[in-house]
Amino acid sequence: MRAYDLIEKKRDNYELTDEEIKWIIKGYVAEEIPDYQMAALLMAIYFNGLNERETLTLTLEMAHSGDMMDLSAIKGIKADKHSTGGVGDKTTMIVAPIVASCGVPVAKMSGRGLGHTGGTVDKLESIPGFRTSMSKEEFFDIVNKVGICVIGQTGNIAPADKKMYALRDVTATVNSIPLIASSIMSKKLAAGSDAIVLDVKTGSGAFMKTREMAVKLAQTMVKIGEGAGRKTVALITDMDRPLGNAIGNAVEVIEAAETLKCKGPSDLTELCKKLAADMLVVAQKGSREDCIRMVEDTLKSGKALAKFKDMITAQGGNPDCLEDYSIFSGAKVHHNVLADREGYIGNINTEKCGISSVILGAGRETKESSIDFGAGIILKEKIGSYVKKGDVIAQMLTNRPETIADAEKLFLENIEIGSEKPAENPLIHARVDINGIDLYD
Amino acid sequence: MRAYDLIEKKRDNYELTDEEIKWIIKGYVAEEIPDYQMAALLMAIYFNGLNERETLTLTLEMAHSGDMMDLSAIKGIKADKHSTGGVGDKTTMIVAPIVASCGVPVAKMSGRGLGHTGGTVDKLESIPGFRTSMSKEEFFDIVNKVGICVIGQTGNIAPADKKMYALRDVTATVNSIPLIASSIMSKKLAAGSDAIVLDVKTGSGAFMKTREMAVKLAQTMVKIGEGAGRKTVALITDMDRPLGNAIGNAVEVIEAAETLKCKGPSDLTELCKKLAADMLVVAQKGSREDCIRMVEDTLKSGKALAKFKDMITAQGGNPDCLEDYSIFSGAKVHHNVLADREGYIGNINTEKCGISSVILGAGRETKESSIDFGAGIILKEKIGSYVKKGDVIAQMLTNRPETIADAEKLFLENIEIGSEKPAENPLIHARVDINGIDLYD
Repeated sequence: MRAYDLIEKKRDNYELTDEEIKWIIKGYVAEEIPDYQMAALLMAIYFNGLNERETLTLTLEMAHSGDMMDLSAIKGIKADKHSTGGVGDKTTMIVAPIVASCGVPVAKMSGRGLGHTGGTVDKLESIPGFRTSMSKEEFFDIVNKVGICVIGQTGNIAPADKKMYALRDVTATVNSIPLIASSIMSKKLAAGSDAIVLDVKTGSGAFMKTREMAVKLAQTMVKIGEGAGRKTVALITDMDRPLGNAIGNAVEVIEAAETLKCKGPSDLTELCKKLAADMLVVAQKGSREDCIRMVEDTLKSGKALAKFKDMITAQGGNPDCLEDYSIFSGAKVHHNVLADREGYIGNINTEKCGISSVILGAGRETKESSIDFGAGIILKEKIGSYVKKGDVIAQMLTNRPETIADAEKLFLENIEIGSEKPAENPLIHARVDINGIDLYD
Repeated sequence: MRAYDLIEKKRDNYELTDEEIKWIIKGYVAEEIPDYQMAALLMAIYFNGLNERETLTLTLEMAHSGDMMDLSAIKGIKADKHSTGGVGDKTTMIVAPIVASCGVPVAKMSGRGLGHTGGTVDKLESIPGFRTSMSKEEFFDIVNKVGICVIGQTGNIAPADKKMYALRDVTATVNSIPLIASSIMSKKLAAGSDAIVLDVKTGSGAFMKTREMAVKLAQTMVKIGEGAGRKTVALITDMDRPLGNAIGNAVEVIEAAETLKCKGPSDLTELCKKLAADMLVVAQKGSREDCIRMVEDTLKSGKALAKFKDMITAQGGNPDCLEDYSIFSGAKVHHNVLADREGYIGNINTEKCGISSVILGAGRETKESSIDFGAGIILKEKIGSYVKKGDVIAQMLTNRPETIADAEKLFLENIEIGSEKPAENPLIHARVDINGIDLYD
């Protein structure tokens, strides 16, 4: 086999065989196929795509390029959740405890912030003492004892994806549905859970800017998951606005705690209930109606909040922070952002809003930057609210006061205040499973 | 500027600005842009193409990446010719002397054999003593004194093309009209002539397998040439059969001599007259009718043959070889290839026919191979001839007798002998100049 012939074949829109796909991935990881041939192939795939079979084979080969986590030492049907990334997305810290408190084990590897989006691992590390890095044995042990553990990526998970993603990132070949789907799913398959719920974000704050792209990505990932023998469901959810009111790290843990206490923002609460219910569904806990009821019950009873505290304790953190928020390292400066005119809060460019929080210190501007856990933005008004000039529309928190001017300017430039009340977007656009798609708008 | 953004721009089918194209080529030659980014860009260009302005700018920047030959020390309008490569194509050795004998200086750099196609430099080197490598001063001096000199590529001509071609060759991005056109024309522009005639081959023995592709390539190259201020004409000519009867090196020089003596094969003679007339046209020697007449006259008078002898003498070769063909190093073995059945000679797979001559030793199988100058194939029957079983249809010449079995097998497998007389293809399909295209079939 020659890489040249396979590039030419895909360039001319022929299907690659399973053997050819496996040969490419093995050769690329072994550095027998150089970056320049892989770059040409990836661009040909960008243009001509991959069919269902090719995408599944690619994903499986990428998953098997490194460690395949064996979670069989953990009893029961293990459920995982993945979000394609958004602004203010603290759902894992709410959904995972809900699901675990209903008896479904959650052995989850989460990511760090990327670009304008935050990461669960960074957020959890704002809890004093919390450890996101540990041995596989301790990880399994905590899941078996507590029913839940959330850590950073560990071991040699899908090295083919790591190498390919780095190349795609510099050759303008990231934005391809089969390549995005195989990248995400190769890591999920390698992470070992039996059932997967995907939260595919769409809108100005998401990587998928249109609903059509998000639906296509969701369908592709569900087919991969099911093709690999994992029960998989995807929700397509709105990221034309930040999720909840808090954007940052400590502020998001606090908002997650409030939500587990049934005092959270309505959009965040609704989405978490739906995601949790679907995780129970794929873990075969009952019908969707039954699972929604289980979620409501566990929240009202306080069991989900207790489960989150147990997890924090098991992972070395101080669970009292969920009751006494002053335990978090705070922010020296609390700056009120005022409306510069009267009107309805309209479109928010959510990506820019995320960047504004990064400027304040809530994310990394470069790989080497350190995070200011106390930094962030609290939205005081949401889309559709009517504000007067001088009303407080948001609060900026930071320990780096010199950043406020830039962050506030970017924030205000990307929030519309107009005379017409904007139409309300649904929070959940669609649900995709192996049987098809339910559209909610 | 970032290479990433330019890849993305071309991927999304936007035009690159002149500044962007110049920046890419400079950066690539300087090794500031890595191969993998260039490979992704080239594949994006393969899919989305380049418009006229982009192609011209790319070509000019590639030409200027190395030496620009300054032929101003040579008096008169200098004319160059380029063939896209074929089997049995010895036109330069006929056309250049014709044109020079009509008073148009020819200062020409030619190439070596590539794959199944021969090269003028290899062919000329079969003349005992002939030198294709010399200093620029000597090259100019010969052109000024004799009116003609044909050498191998010298100096640092279009290094950007060299580097890009090597990358395209391993990333399946060769077969793109704007990339082929810019590759050829960057070298022609750097070679310094004022006027250019292009012989674009089409058919089974050519790199452009279809007439449509050949016309598109011709139009693109004519626009580049004229855009760069060089008078440019292209003929689209047939390569569904070898040109003339001889394929090899010494045998092709001999056939060229016969043609200059007005005793050559009719197809070769016709094409050479047309190419030579167009070289006189672009060198502003008169109307096409006048120029055709000049070509006929110079051939009949023996002046063109004399000019070729003068050139051979000036370049160190023995001109007597054009009268006494035994001066060439011959072939130990002359093997007759017999028709295995009765019928009309039909299609010839010309590429395979060229490979057969390479097997005999007339070309290089690898870069390191040496050429057997006496080796080759002489066709004894051409397309449309009626042959009986056992008739000699070709003669194979070689000093490596062990190669004959393989060469003969490949040759016979790729020549049809059938009951129906095949339709005759025109030799010249079309002529393209700045005013448009004349189709001849």
